[in-house]
Amino acid sequence: MTYCIGLKLDDGIVFASDTRTNAGMDNIASYRKMHVWDTLDDRRFVLLSAGNLAVTQAVVELLNEQIATSRDDTPTLATVANMMQAARLVGAASRAVRAADDTFSASFIFGGQVSGDAQRLFHIYREGNFIEIGGDTNYAQIGEFKYGKPILDRIVASELTITQATKLVLLSFDSTLRSNLSVGMPIDLYLYRRDSLTGVQRRVTSDDPYFLTLSRGYAEALRTAFDTLPDFPDAP
Amino acid sequence: MTYCIGLKLDDGIVFASDTRTNAGMDNIASYRKMHVWDTLDDRRFVLLSAGNLAVTQAVVELLNEQIATSRDDTPTLATVANMMQAARLVGAASRAVRAADDTFSASFIFGGQVSGDAQRLFHIYREGNFIEIGGDTNYAQIGEFKYGKPILDRIVASELTITQATKLVLLSFDSTLRSNLSVGMPIDLYLYRRDSLTGVQRRVTSDDPYFLTLSRGYAEALRTAFDTLPDFPDAP
Repeated sequence: MTYCIGLKLDDGIVFASDTRTNAGMDNIASYRKMHVWDTLDDRRFVLLSAGNLAVTQAVVELLNEQIATSRDDTPTLATVANMMQAARLVGAASRAVRAADDTFSASFIFGGQVSGDAQRLFHIYREGNFIEIGGDTNYAQIGEFKYGKPILDRIVASELTITQATKLVLLSFDSTLRSNLSVGMPIDLYLYRRDSLTGVQRRVTSDDPYFLTLSRGYAEALRTAFDTLPDFPDAP
Repeated sequence: MTYCIGLKLDDGIVFASDTRTNAGMDNIASYRKMHVWDTLDDRRFVLLSAGNLAVTQAVVELLNEQIATSRDDTPTLATVANMMQAARLVGAASRAVRAADDTFSASFIFGGQVSGDAQRLFHIYREGNFIEIGGDTNYAQIGEFKYGKPILDRIVASELTITQATKLVLLSFDSTLRSNLSVGMPIDLYLYRRDSLTGVQRRVTSDDPYFLTLSRGYAEALRTAFDTLPDFPDAP
């Protein structure tokens, strides 16, 4: 399985993805599920993918092929005027790949910014259509999302700073990793600051000192909270 | 959907179930998903059910019919010598009901004690077969279980007292209720103390003072823990 989050803040977007692609008994593999377009002059895109790896890789390949071979009149990620057009390209690429093999599917979180346009974040469904993330609901999850949703729902707010939001995202992964073997470290992070057209990319490994501090500190705090709260008043 | 937990402790078993059976737009219904056999002299059984309501109710009806109409040589819940035999009866009843309508299914958590036998807890699958809960894994969940699993996994231990374990179970429900609309209050609880052959049955409503204390206290503790933990060290 997979777990990916895109979290949109007033100040930027935090992207995170796990790397476990196969959790069979003797076939555990890791692949990057985060693709960053960071060499295009006036734009920055991040794509997180869940689903069949052949499909998700083919979608990225197709989008890159379009950039490499584009004629003047065909829009590509390198030429679209705004994020909405970019999201349409990703949706169309996903549909094109699926058309060749309908038995598999993939879903995506896609976000970033084109210079002159707002930063935007989209949840692209297996059908290739999509919704924009923001306003009342400012995060998207794909893959094995349920374990890590309660902590998100309790804390999430668009006013969080990017580094606070990254802490929240990593805590959501921590809860997921503890309860589900099909989601695995390392975690890929991309922190995008609004209007910067650049970002910080990090890979968080299982022995990352910050992650260990976070994981242990949160476990202790939960334990203390549990011990401090009153026990059920009726005993049998 | 449904959320049910059975949690086996050294000192007893805690059973909990939600009551939401339908979460369509204008068709929200509540039904008891916990059935307690508490009028049989030397035994106490609790059954929690998830799945199609027609199936789960038919299983309980069938088990009760067997008790009411049993001939001397046919085992029923009222006559079996131990919990393992009781679990087999429930599994067989589930298979019998499914045989008439294979399109629907149900799964169960079943536990309790027959005088002279140990307290035991079982997870009965849709196929009618089952596993015993205990040892390394001392809880079973059925229904919409993922949201409430992280808190269970962090705290659960067979050494918890029954009232501590009930607190834990309610916190697991609280996380689920916040993230998933298809699981709904009130929550039915049954607290069974080992070798007592009796128990405390309670229905926890959304305005229950203890539940509100727990829910708010835990939310505040999580918020404080989040604020106290260090933010991600790399800013874009």
